[in-house]
Amino acid sequence: MYFGVCYYPEHWPEERWETDAKMMREAGINIVRIGEFAWSRMERRAGSFDFTWLDRIIGILAGEGIQVILGTPTATPPKWLMDQHPDLYMRDMYGDVRGYGNRRHYCYSNDNYLPYISTIVGKMAERYGNDPRVVAWQIDNEFGCNETTRCYCDNCKTKFQLWLKDKYQEIDHMNACWGTVFWSQIYNEWEEVIVPAYTVFPLHNPGLVLDYRRFASDAVCRFQKFQTDLIRQYAPQATITHNMMGAFNEIDAFDLSEDLDIVSWDNYPNLMFTKEVDPALAAMQHDITRGLKRTNFWVMEHQSGQPGGNIMFPTPKPQELRRWTYQSIAHGADGILYFRWRGCLFGAEQYWHGILAHDGKAGRKYREVQQVGSELTRIWPSLEGSVNQAQVAMIRSYDHEWVFEIQPHIMDYTYMDHFKSYYHYWYDHQIATDILAPQADFSGYRVLVLPHFIMTTDELVAKVYEYVHAGGIIVLDYRAGAKDWHNRMEALTLPGKFSDLLGISVEEYGVLGKEEFRRIRRLGNEEIYHGRTWFDVIELHGAQALATFSEDYFSGCPAVTMNEYGKGKAYYIGTELDAKLRDDIFSAICRDAELAMSGDGIVTDSPRVEIVSRFKGGQAYTFVINHSVEPVHVQIANPKYDLLSEKELHGVTELGGNGVMILCGAESYRSATMEG
Amino acid sequence: MYFGVCYYPEHWPEERWETDAKMMREAGINIVRIGEFAWSRMERRAGSFDFTWLDRIIGILAGEGIQVILGTPTATPPKWLMDQHPDLYMRDMYGDVRGYGNRRHYCYSNDNYLPYISTIVGKMAERYGNDPRVVAWQIDNEFGCNETTRCYCDNCKTKFQLWLKDKYQEIDHMNACWGTVFWSQIYNEWEEVIVPAYTVFPLHNPGLVLDYRRFASDAVCRFQKFQTDLIRQYAPQATITHNMMGAFNEIDAFDLSEDLDIVSWDNYPNLMFTKEVDPALAAMQHDITRGLKRTNFWVMEHQSGQPGGNIMFPTPKPQELRRWTYQSIAHGADGILYFRWRGCLFGAEQYWHGILAHDGKAGRKYREVQQVGSELTRIWPSLEGSVNQAQVAMIRSYDHEWVFEIQPHIMDYTYMDHFKSYYHYWYDHQIATDILAPQADFSGYRVLVLPHFIMTTDELVAKVYEYVHAGGIIVLDYRAGAKDWHNRMEALTLPGKFSDLLGISVEEYGVLGKEEFRRIRRLGNEEIYHGRTWFDVIELHGAQALATFSEDYFSGCPAVTMNEYGKGKAYYIGTELDAKLRDDIFSAICRDAELAMSGDGIVTDSPRVEIVSRFKGGQAYTFVINHSVEPVHVQIANPKYDLLSEKELHGVTELGGNGVMILCGAESYRSATMEG
Amino acid sequence: MYFGVCYYPEHWPEERWETDAKMMREAGINIVRIGEFAWSRMERRAGSFDFTWLDRIIGILAGEGIQVILGTPTATPPKWLMDQHPDLYMRDMYGDVRGYGNRRHYCYSNDNYLPYISTIVGKMAERYGNDPRVVAWQIDNEFGCNETTRCYCDNCKTKFQLWLKDKYQEIDHMNACWGTVFWSQIYNEWEEVIVPAYTVFPLHNPGLVLDYRRFASDAVCRFQKFQTDLIRQYAPQATITHNMMGAFNEIDAFDLSEDLDIVSWDNYPNLMFTKEVDPALAAMQHDITRGLKRTNFWVMEHQSGQPGGNIMFPTPKPQELRRWTYQSIAHGADGILYFRWRGCLFGAEQYWHGILAHDGKAGRKYREVQQVGSELTRIWPSLEGSVNQAQVAMIRSYDHEWVFEIQPHIMDYTYMDHFKSYYHYWYDHQIATDILAPQADFSGYRVLVLPHFIMTTDELVAKVYEYVHAGGIIVLDYRAGAKDWHNRMEALTLPGKFSDLLGISVEEYGVLGKEEFRRIRRLGNEEIYHGRTWFDVIELHGAQALATFSEDYFSGCPAVTMNEYGKGKAYYIGTELDAKLRDDIFSAICRDAELAMSGDGIVTDSPRVEIVSRFKGGQAYTFVINHSVEPVHVQIANPKYDLLSEKELHGVTELGGNGVMILCGAESYRSATMEG
Repeated sequence: MYFGVCYYPEHWPEERWETDAKMMREAGINIVRIGEFAWSRMERRAGSFDFTWLDRIIGILAGEGIQVILGTPTATPPKWLMDQHPDLYMRDMYGDVRGYGNRRHYCYSNDNYLPYISTIVGKMAERYGNDPRVVAWQIDNEFGCNETTRCYCDNCKTKFQLWLKDKYQEIDHMNACWGTVFWSQIYNEWEEVIVPAYTVFPLHNPGLVLDYRRFASDAVCRFQKFQTDLIRQYAPQATITHNMMGAFNEIDAFDLSEDLDIVSWDNYPNLMFTKEVDPALAAMQHDITRGLKRTNFWVMEHQSGQPGGNIMFPTPKPQELRRWTYQSIAHGADGILYFRWRGCLFGAEQYWHGILAHDGKAGRKYREVQQVGSELTRIWPSLEGSVNQAQVAMIRSYDHEWVFEIQPHIMDYTYMDHFKSYYHYWYDHQIATDILAPQADFSGYRVLVLPHFIMTTDELVAKVYEYVHAGGIIVLDYRAGAKDWHNRMEALTLPGKFSDLLGISVEEYGVLGKEEFRRIRRLGNEEIYHGRTWFDVIELHGAQALATFSEDYFSGCPAVTMNEYGKGKAYYIGTELDAKLRDDIFSAICRDAELAMSGDGIVTDSPRVEIVSRFKGGQAYTFVINHSVEPVHVQIANPKYDLLSEKELHGVTELGGNGVMILCGAESYRSATMEG
Repeated sequence: MYFGVCYYPEHWPEERWETDAKMMREAGINIVRIGEFAWSRMERRAGSFDFTWLDRIIGILAGEGIQVILGTPTATPPKWLMDQHPDLYMRDMYGDVRGYGNRRHYCYSNDNYLPYISTIVGKMAERYGNDPRVVAWQIDNEFGCNETTRCYCDNCKTKFQLWLKDKYQEIDHMNACWGTVFWSQIYNEWEEVIVPAYTVFPLHNPGLVLDYRRFASDAVCRFQKFQTDLIRQYAPQATITHNMMGAFNEIDAFDLSEDLDIVSWDNYPNLMFTKEVDPALAAMQHDITRGLKRTNFWVMEHQSGQPGGNIMFPTPKPQELRRWTYQSIAHGADGILYFRWRGCLFGAEQYWHGILAHDGKAGRKYREVQQVGSELTRIWPSLEGSVNQAQVAMIRSYDHEWVFEIQPHIMDYTYMDHFKSYYHYWYDHQIATDILAPQADFSGYRVLVLPHFIMTTDELVAKVYEYVHAGGIIVLDYRAGAKDWHNRMEALTLPGKFSDLLGISVEEYGVLGKEEFRRIRRLGNEEIYHGRTWFDVIELHGAQALATFSEDYFSGCPAVTMNEYGKGKAYYIGTELDAKLRDDIFSAICRDAELAMSGDGIVTDSPRVEIVSRFKGGQAYTFVINHSVEPVHVQIANPKYDLLSEKELHGVTELGGNGVMILCGAESYRSATMEG
Repeated sequence: MYFGVCYYPEHWPEERWETDAKMMREAGINIVRIGEFAWSRMERRAGSFDFTWLDRIIGILAGEGIQVILGTPTATPPKWLMDQHPDLYMRDMYGDVRGYGNRRHYCYSNDNYLPYISTIVGKMAERYGNDPRVVAWQIDNEFGCNETTRCYCDNCKTKFQLWLKDKYQEIDHMNACWGTVFWSQIYNEWEEVIVPAYTVFPLHNPGLVLDYRRFASDAVCRFQKFQTDLIRQYAPQATITHNMMGAFNEIDAFDLSEDLDIVSWDNYPNLMFTKEVDPALAAMQHDITRGLKRTNFWVMEHQSGQPGGNIMFPTPKPQELRRWTYQSIAHGADGILYFRWRGCLFGAEQYWHGILAHDGKAGRKYREVQQVGSELTRIWPSLEGSVNQAQVAMIRSYDHEWVFEIQPHIMDYTYMDHFKSYYHYWYDHQIATDILAPQADFSGYRVLVLPHFIMTTDELVAKVYEYVHAGGIIVLDYRAGAKDWHNRMEALTLPGKFSDLLGISVEEYGVLGKEEFRRIRRLGNEEIYHGRTWFDVIELHGAQALATFSEDYFSGCPAVTMNEYGKGKAYYIGTELDAKLRDDIFSAICRDAELAMSGDGIVTDSPRVEIVSRFKGGQAYTFVINHSVEPVHVQIANPKYDLLSEKELHGVTELGGNGVMILCGAESYRSATMEG
């Protein structure tokens, strides 16, 4: 297992480096990320290079048995470079230059940047590409961070026009797909096409805006590919990654991952002042990341101190680092690097704290990292090679998320809030879930949820029909099928091409205000449920109603339906369900699908306990994580061995606040250990 | 009666046009607005024209007996045109170009636009100006919509300077009127004068800002006149209108109406998520529109579905369309066109819904339109030629509203909120009200209300004095008379030139915070009233106090006064009245004026019922409109005939939720029918 | 005593001037400020001068015995001047020009402005510099008002680069001090250095931002010095002042004061709609101003009416003017000028009211001014030459305040809120307080409070150690010692260089959310206190705990500590104290320091009464000011004479709402009077 830290030797006097390396080693650290952001130290002036300091620190780390992930420094082109090409700066939608002083100030579409990258990254790859101490490369840093995906400069306009020409070939094909006849926006030439910048009123053609988001996402992927190609030219065997940002949605992370060997992400579970951090959010982002290449991943930056720019966020409490770390591993992380080694004395992030305080002394958090490092050294052999397994998949589509970001439909409402409300069911009920692209292979899953699947292609529709026909269970909901892939309404009665599958028609619909709801009832049940945000007025054409509105002019109309289709079932949800109704409906789905819970008969008395398993050779390793500060009770039906406490457990056991267990079958562990 | 719909044939395949026309006819539709926004389809490239599609749709509609209102497409100059003259784009107060992508992106003051307009509108007028199937023209679309009245480009600066030179002749006359000596802002040359754009602190000279608003409003009128002149050149008999926006205040609608044959407006009663939409708001806007030319009007766009850009607003419930339609007619609408025929599949307004859903099928709202169409066909002969009549007038002055928008005096306070609080009294008490310009003839009204009449001219003051002297009753309130017509303070003790008329002096005054109030009492009354927003400290000089402050250092000073002057009475209100005190004071005024209620002895038990009459040949047609979903009771003193239910009604009758009656004298109806 | 008013003769017809002068004299007024903002009237066109009107009004005022303070008009360069040098306009951080139309539209760093100033101010100084009727000069007006301190134009960039070169000499010294190695921001040339304008994300290098604030403050001082040098060239004996803005923090007022003969400030106690104005705020600002040159001061603008731009603020109630005036004098004001004489009829401030209303008649406020004028004429001989005396000093450092404005650490938290919470203790407990620069001499004070002393220099640290060692009592708090003077973290365990003095180490720390707190207990006390905003986790190394956290993982750790050092004591506060705990701790400090209350045994039963003394020749003049509208009881232990009521008072006396007493020893007053 890679257990490490992000480190900036250039921020510290060389005299300190050996102390740092030694302290790292003593904490069990075996990997360090360096180099990203250090362009100025490698090439202080154009063409004037110095890699000797990098050689020295790599050597010192190696001396303590620590390997290196090397970052390319392209997120921070130095001032001398920007002064040579002021056209590199991003422009905002008002045309204002987003000037120097922070980072990520370059436009992805400006080819003038590429020769500089060729030089610096080329030199790095040449020097370290085949160095066994350098085990991986990180391209740039957090693409898109701080709203840097979409730029409105003239370069972007030209590149966008070329992208469109390539996509649509004929301008009237584009005119038709976008519907530019609306408000006389027909284009005659590619050169006339705009980027969706500042205009009279912030309401552009929906097809244009969606394509601009796709273009911008593609531009980042192309920018990354320039660097991966460069590195592979010198080091064909290099392992290359990029540190993504979990639920961040400006770039299609499925596309961005294609060119990478392994994906990683930056996990900061507590960036906010909320009374109680919801651990499902980190869980979901782990699952998102694992789904990108459908395999295990790294956490490239793992929160270790209070984050902060000009204001600070909460500091991790004792044992939180450890708990978060095990949650990461439980969801598929095979590498963990804490961010950062030590609080920096200067710069914009002097308040973004790390393991060590500014004084560089070993404190509480260092000791906690040391504890985790020591545990992992001991238990990793058992976990190595284990993977997550799921019978449920949720489809997360960036295209769909963009549509809802462009057109939220409802005030203060996001695709991801909606997505997360379904995800939470699986999280709460210990049911492992994969999160996949719409292009993924659906086979092998018992249940498939496609939240807000508003756009379709014939191909995707056919795949969904086939999946259900063959016995799959699918969940669709309001707005499904309303549009084609160009963000253009279908001229069909809703749910459009899904009508036959779902056995319903949506006769009309409406939005609800922020505080509004409509009452919902279920047959044979006195409970009052609530639908929010939206209501569909549904007519049944073969489906059956599972829940029914009981007020307003659509009282008596179905709110949730189920249709049998082929060997499978197709559910439809025509409103935003409250948690109670969601749980009722999803429990029914689980019964239909005969889904198993994650832990082999392991249950708790607290909703703050997460239970999730990794598997290897038929053996489950079940992580029981207490996300509260209070002790909880864990009931263990079959005898288990806890890797962490090194105890056999059976029946009811107490798990302390912030406590973690990693349970495997007691017997098989004993036999494995004897063999080993 | 014109009963119709806004239609965009260019959005739909030609194969569909006949179906649409037939469905329209079957819903009773006899008029369709087309053409506005369709420039690209008429002139796809500079000088390349195609009107054949317009010929075809006009023919198809005529085939179903449907006539056409033709819109000029100048709200949406196409991209090829803008690329020829990028100087046409509006600029915001920061100097940023308000670029392409929405609509209304042109500056009214840029003469480079005019040749293009001459060509396209000239060709349309030439082709259709004398076509009997085209019954009216709409110039452009919703002038000023989305804050497009005021532009800050260099053209506007130059045109403003010329406008000022024309108005003031001598620069020192302007310096004196504005008081530019303040902060050394004296201008020596017209070319030095600024537009009130972005500056160090958003606080410009009040005279400058007011004149800039006047200039901007004039520029729109001039822009419109260019088109009406053009059309009349080809078609001197053409009926020309523009679709205004009710209470929208950036353009002086009295001025804009002067050049039009009939005014129309766009009525969207439910654009917001409020628990309970206040129907008085639509009523007031109807009355505003009727007052523009003091005659009946059209509703050019009448809400028929949920509106929406990137978010959606509520969908009309069953029978709401019908209720809103009758409210429009009750207030003087002789034409109703629903917006829009069918939800558009693309473009910025794909979520701005119409009568038909995107699937184009006849649904609930189509059937409701059909119901209304069929009713109107039957009853219109009775109503045709009927008009509203009022003994009360409220003066709405754009100049005054601008002053209060520039200088609200009090945080989160608007002229229109204040205006509406008075309007509501008349609305609640079934007292018909006209809304007029200050320049209107006052004679013929029993009561005249001049809310916040802060600026005066000698001429207006004289007219007010004469009106009261001759027996009129006038209501003035706090800030009356404080300024001259240049937005400059009078050096007079308040209420300035109204002092003699009102028989008071205002010794001092103060504002109150948002949550603050001061208690008010009336003689012989135990009730505690409240004044908000403002207090005048009034001394009586002949007037009598009708209500008196009972706390703070001005306790005992009058809050409301009345002065007899000539044969009339002049009321003064020195604070923002709560509803109770407003009702008390206005009831007294009504008694003084012997005002009659709208309905001939028709009363209800619900505050959600609106009662308003149109008159023809001495006969009242009284609309009783239930703006709630609950049934209400209507008490009918004298026997009436209900045009809608075709029943004679007398005594107490139930009127269902959303229900409407149109009552006329039973006997006279019978005799009229026999005659007819 | 200077008792006066701000007057704008250029706003009024000359016929009115004599009336105004006479009315002023009758109100006891002996000084008038004129001229600032009147550039257009002195030089209407470039090089065309007219001072005759100024001659006339100075003469008329002199005729009534009224002297003049003359303002230089450089806050309002006329339009003709700006049109000659459009480069003079300030630019905001987006690069947008802050255009014409308000005031203060010039950039301090643009030398093109200086020749114009030389001419106009030179001519004024030449003409009036030695005129005995002109007793003082005011430079410009409210430097920095409306965020005009910091500009982002190219001139500023160049001047900033020169300022940096001058400060750091070597660019790598600057690189090191700022830590530009972070994010590759190393500069190679001075010309590369940026101003902290708009960038990708609003988070610049902290050293850069702090230096830019220092530079901008220095630029204003330099700009002022250009004018003071100019005036002194013509009139070496001239008394020169500038009207500052109390707690305004963009300019280092200690620096700005250096070049002035006397400081003055603009006191508007009620600019807001708060239920109850906190009079401590005005008190604190008086004390701030008095500390600038550690001597008495003037109030150049003293609120006399409701202020207002486009909205208005509350009007002063009866006796508020008088009460505020005596509060000003109590804190050290030797001159009071009300703003303004009469409400202006035009211009941006037509709603910023004065003593007279727009009608120019003597009203309530005029009579109140007259009352105060008459009282002051009578009592001033007793007060003349008296000064405030304090044993407590608070250090207010602009550098530190800037650090906390750049990096507030905690959402919605300001240095000044924190500062004020300590100040309030002294205010509430009648303990006179000086407010000083960190560079001030500390000796002579018993207690010194250094709120948030986050940055240190070795020199300042040494001074603090010496002060305590010699017997002083010091109060430091959380964040003390965290940084060096370059806004760079110390690589030391907190509280850094203060560790020995304080006898503690801060092992770690964290922020608390807005609604969060942690419970605190004190030994031998059942009370529950609360810490907010921040917690330090403190270890004692010699100090003793005065209060201790009683929850969360640092329960049992000290929240407040005290360390004996040399002959003195050093307190440390590791959280934001609630008022109860603050009072407990500060009371203990007072006992340690044996501090005396302001009044000689004068106490009241109301927290709304302020008691503060001026001293002359061993005699205290104690102002007892009732800041409520209710009468209160004042208990007077030793017989006193009240200068205002001219009564001897002893024992319990009632003081009316808004009432004021000025008490001195009855006996000494009698003997002084007999002598006099």
